[in-house]
Order: sequence, then structure tokens, then C-alpha cells
Amino acid sequence: SRSLRLAVVPGDGIGQEVVAEGLKVLAAALPADVKVETTEYDLGARLYHRTGETLPGAVLEELKTQDAILLGAIGDPSVPSGVLERGLLLKLRFAFDHHINLRPGKLLPGVQSPLAGDPKIDFVVVREGTEGPYVGNGGTLRTGTEHEVATEVSLNTAFGIERVVRDAYKRAAARPRKKLTLVHKNNVLVHAGHLWSRIFAEVGREFPEVSTDYLHVDAATIFFVTQPERFDVIVTDNLFGDILTDLAAAVTGGIGLAASGNINPTGAFPSMFEPVHGSAPDIAGQGKADPTATVLSVAMLLEHLGFAEEAAKVEAAVAADLLARSGTRSTSEVGDAIAARVSG
Amino acid sequence: SRSLRLAVVPGDGIGQEVVAEGLKVLAAALPADVKVETTEYDLGARLYHRTGETLPGAVLEELKTQDAILLGAIGDPSVPSGVLERGLLLKLRFAFDHHINLRPGKLLPGVQSPLAGDPKIDFVVVREGTEGPYVGNGGTLRTGTEHEVATEVSLNTAFGIERVVRDAYKRAAARPRKKLTLVHKNNVLVHAGHLWSRIFAEVGREFPEVSTDYLHVDAATIFFVTQPERFDVIVTDNLFGDILTDLAAAVTGGIGLAASGNINPTGAFPSMFEPVHGSAPDIAGQGKADPTATVLSVAMLLEHLGFAEEAAKVEAAVAADLLARSGTRSTSEVGDAIAARVSG
Ligand SMILES: CC(C)[C@H](C(=O)O)[C@@H](O)C(=O)O
Ligand SMILES: CC(C)[C@H](C(=O)O)[C@@H](O)C(=O)O
Repeated sequence: SRSLRLAVVPGDGIGQEVVAEGLKVLAAALPADVKVETTEYDLGARLYHRTGETLPGAVLEELKTQDAILLGAIGDPSVPSGVLERGLLLKLRFAFDHHINLRPGKLLPGVQSPLAGDPKIDFVVVREGTEGPYVGNGGTLRTGTEHEVATEVSLNTAFGIERVVRDAYKRAAARPRKKLTLVHKNNVLVHAGHLWSRIFAEVGREFPEVSTDYLHVDAATIFFVTQPERFDVIVTDNLFGDILTDLAAAVTGGIGLAASGNINPTGAFPSMFEPVHGSAPDIAGQGKADPTATVLSVAMLLEHLGFAEEAAKVEAAVAADLLARSGTRSTSEVGDAIAARVSG
Repeated sequence: SRSLRLAVVPGDGIGQEVVAEGLKVLAAALPADVKVETTEYDLGARLYHRTGETLPGAVLEELKTQDAILLGAIGDPSVPSGVLERGLLLKLRFAFDHHINLRPGKLLPGVQSPLAGDPKIDFVVVREGTEGPYVGNGGTLRTGTEHEVATEVSLNTAFGIERVVRDAYKRAAARPRKKLTLVHKNNVLVHAGHLWSRIFAEVGREFPEVSTDYLHVDAATIFFVTQPERFDVIVTDNLFGDILTDLAAAVTGGIGLAASGNINPTGAFPSMFEPVHGSAPDIAGQGKADPTATVLSVAMLLEHLGFAEEAAKVEAAVAADLLARSGTRSTSEVGDAIAARVSG
């Protein structure tokens, strides 16, 4: 019998509710001989208010020994914007070198897109997760005065870009359409942009079977709504990936369905799976949140840990559930329904 | 009789074609006693290839003496990405301190949005034009090697933010809905983001009649496609404004219709009006480009120069033309039709 050590970080707002459903489906999906040891970590607004800490060193050390992390959502209006995001969520992504931030954009049958004309959408965004404008390198001068100056530095390295670009080429090569689009803004952010473009071209020589193109981020948003079917795999930097994947979620039926993986493919540290949505404090605790994004993130977690068949089962169950949807169901009713399909 | 000194920079690709139609409509719109002295400046790829220059100092000096600038489009595949954008377009915006980059997002009757369900869209984006990640403050180390590091520094000042935020409040206060949304990413870009948020709150105290909210840029893209009617006036930084206004153009019928003004409200330097679209080299010279975005930019130019009635006339002519559209027309046919409505 195998065993799996899973860290669970429900976090804030609806995090608790959606993670519970994710675990329900995980239990239903795993083979009987796999024992899951889950450890729940109470990180987020509650811990911060109690102790002033966002990610205690001892917790970080313990997390390192886990096979994977399932995260709900981080952020609460009672905590200044950025404290939990930078001190917990981004800290985990950076500490565990989650350089592949994987976010599929797929419009599933039965799901209503806000776009007219029933578009066919099936792409995946490979977002860089450890560099760019997210490094936290910035500061202020004459803080709080009318002469304040604030900076944010985007740091980009050949090393960091090369590994995410190569990962994206591999994914593109493994898909039927074999198409990879680089998104940046190399006509304005010329230093970072040209580095991305250079490495994109260089690595591309190893993948002659992959067809490539380049779009400025502003133009990419246009195609997301007018021609989303043109995309297969997209590779982009941390900030552009953040923006594009929320837009991707919107056109594929909403953030209630958008899954993500913060992946360290080397295995040196645990990878972390989380819905793209936030903590939605306005509907927290009411059983209104759609747990599907978390369930699909659990499928990505399964896939990552080598349970490809089980991952496919969860995805199929979600697809069937979406097709059958009618009326309003509570968070746990959705989780129950998907878990039942997985077991059934 | 009054006179108007207008600089015309057709630029690259379709720039020439669309600017010609803009001038046609301008001539039709202006009162008979206003004399327009246009001076055409051949800037862009041709000049660059001929001389290596993007914006000669003498031209910059001459432009300063003009009342306004009408620009077509900048950028050509024969020139490395960024050379003309940074060396000409952004150089003009920065040299003339165009801190208000004004971009309306309005879905006009008769225009098909890619969004389902016939949304009502009528907002305006006030994009900061002289700061943020656009300042060109960055560089590379170990350039061209596998150890390259590239930086881009976003510079933000209380002074720069305050003036654009105040302008946005004024615009919001003058509109029926009186609503202003700040868009940034203050949970990640905490230094710049908190400065924006602080000043947004401070200036807001002078405009108690304006209701405000805040959205992270990623969330804003979701609402652009799921609930665009929620927006009235949006104020945001240079990069986020670039991204959001292309998306705004997409949901309001395409960049063929999206106008913009690079405005220096102090009048110290000429303001510049240009379509949001690029030079579209793939369709250049074929009479296929839609000149409507340029014509609407001419309306903004008229408004800026104090010809409010004439601006309204041009807008009405465009609205009527859009409603009457059927079949394919050439660039000049569209310009002729609108000009005829303006004169008629
Ligand atoms: C909460 C925030 C820090 C985060 C990000 O910007 O990466 C979120 O928007 C996401 O996309 O996962
Ligand atoms: C061409 C480019 C430099 C420009 C920008 O990024 O501002 C364009 O995209 C725009 O929106 O006017």
C-alpha cells in the first residue's frame, strides 16, 4: 500500500468550504490501497490576527516534507491588501520555486461562455511563477507625502525564462495542435521582453514540430474574446499570466471553474494546487461557492503525483456534472455529486 | 477668422490611409472661418531606415509650436520591436507630458459586440501616460548569455498619480452615474499599488458625490467581459491601461473603432490624438482599414481644441454611419460617407 502526505491550507473566506469538497473528491478518486495522510495548516487571516505571522518558519519546514499542497484561497478585507498575498501565497510559490504556474482554459460542454457564438476554447497558459514584477523588489521614498516615489522592479533571468519556456514547448509538442504563443510586451518593456523573445526563439530550435507566434499582451486580450480558438499553449510572465488567466477563466465560464497548479517539476519541493479564484468574503460560509475549480485543481494534483487515470476520472466526473447541472446547489451538494460520479 | 496649426504624423502601415480620412472629416467638420494649417511629418519606419533617426530634435521642437497632433500608427516588422515605439510614440507622449491618456469604451448602436446578450457599455478609461512600467528604466546584465538578467523598473510618483486621479474624478463627477473605479494590483505590487490607493482615497475626499471602488487588474478583465455595464470611469496606470483599453476595444466592437487622446491638460505642449490600433502591416495599402477609430480621435481632438459642437457632429455622423453599415467598403468610402454626413 502506498501513502501520500498532503498538506491542506484552506485559508480565508470560501477556502474552507471548497477545500472540503476537493478532499471529498480526492478520497473518492484514489485507489483503495493509497493511504492519504492530510495535515491541515490554519494559515491566513485568523493566524495573522492571532499572532501577526503569515507563514511561520516551522510551518514552512514542515510543508517541505509533504508530497503536495492543496490550497483554498488567501485574502481577507480585515488584513491590509498584500500582507497575506505576499507573506503567505507568494511566499510559498517563491520558497518552493513553483516556476510553472499551469492554468488550463477550456470551455467544457454545457458551460455558458459570456462570448457569443459558442466558441471552441481549449488552451493552457504556462505562467512563469517566480520572477518578473512579482519578485517584491520595490520600495518607497518620502512615504506618505506629496513627494512620495514608489518603485516596482521586474526581475527576469535567462535561467528562469528558459525553464518555463522549455516546459511550455514540451507541453505544446505533446498536444495535437502543437502550437505555442509567447505573450509579452516587448515593444515597451524592451529589456525583459527581448530576453523572453530571444530565449523563446533559441529553445524553439529544439522543437521544430511546434509552430510559434508572438503577441503583445494587449493584443492577446483582444484575441481572448474575439478568437480564443486560436490559442493552444501560451507562455508568459508572472504578471501577464495573472491577468490573462483571469480573462481566460471569464471566457470559459467563470472563476468558479478555473483550476491551477503551482508546479516545481524538479520535485525538490512540494507543488501546490489551488483554484484561480480568491477568497470571496462576501459569500463565505454560506455554502454558495462553486467547489468545481478546487475539484479540478485536485485533478491536476492527482496528475502531478502520478495518478493520471484517477485525474482523468475526476475530470470526466466534473464534465458530466456540468452537463447535468440545473437549479441551484450548495457547495457540498456539488462536491457530493462529483464524488458520487467518481465512485460510481 | 481663426486658425489652427495641426501636425500630422501618418506613421507606418495603415497610418497613412486612416489619417487621410480623419483629415477629410476634420475639414468637413470645422466652421468655414477656421483655417487649418496642417504640417505632415514623415516619421516612422521610412525615416528610420533612411537616417537611423526616430524623432529628430528639430522635429520635436517644431511639433511644440503646433496646436495638436494627429497620429496614425507606429510600428513595422522591418524595425526591431521597441525602436519606433520607444523612440517615437512613447517619446512624444513623454516629451509632451501627455499624462492623461483618454480612451472611451462605448458600444454604439448597430455595432456587434463579441459578448453575448447585447450588453450596454459606456465607460471611459483614464490611463496614466507618463509613468509606471513605461518609463524605460531598465537594463540587462550579461546580455545575450545564459546568465542574462533583465530588469524593468516601474516608477510612480505622488505628483504623477495625483494629477491623473484628479482628472478622472472630475470626469466622473461630470457624468450622470458619477462612478470611478481604480484598477491596480495593490496586493502584489504593494509599493506602487498602495501609493495609488492612498492618493485615490485622498483626492476622493474632494469629490464626495463620486462613488468609488477598487479592482485588481485581473478581476477587472473578468468584469470587462461578464459585466461591462458596471464601469463608468476607470483610472489606472500606464501598463494596466494599455491592456484594459485593448480589451475594452474588443468588447465594444474592435480596435477599428477605438479612439484615444494623449492629453496634456495644461496646454504647455500639444496634445496628440490617435487610434488605439497599430499599423497592421498585413493590410496596409489595400484600402481595407477602418478609419473610424481615427475619425473618432479627430472628434476628441476637436473637443480638446474647444470645438465641442463640431466634435459632437462628428460623433453623431459616425454613429449614423455605423447604424447604416452594410457590405464591405474601402477605407476612403467610409471616410467619404462620414464626411458627407458631417457636411450634410
Ligand atoms: C492573490 C494573488 C496574489 C494571486 C496572483 O496575483 O498571482 C492571484 O491573483 C492568482 O492569480 O493566483
Ligand atoms: C504601440 C505601443 C507602444 C502602445 C502602448 O503600449 O501604449 C499601444 O499599444 C497603445 O496602446 O497605444
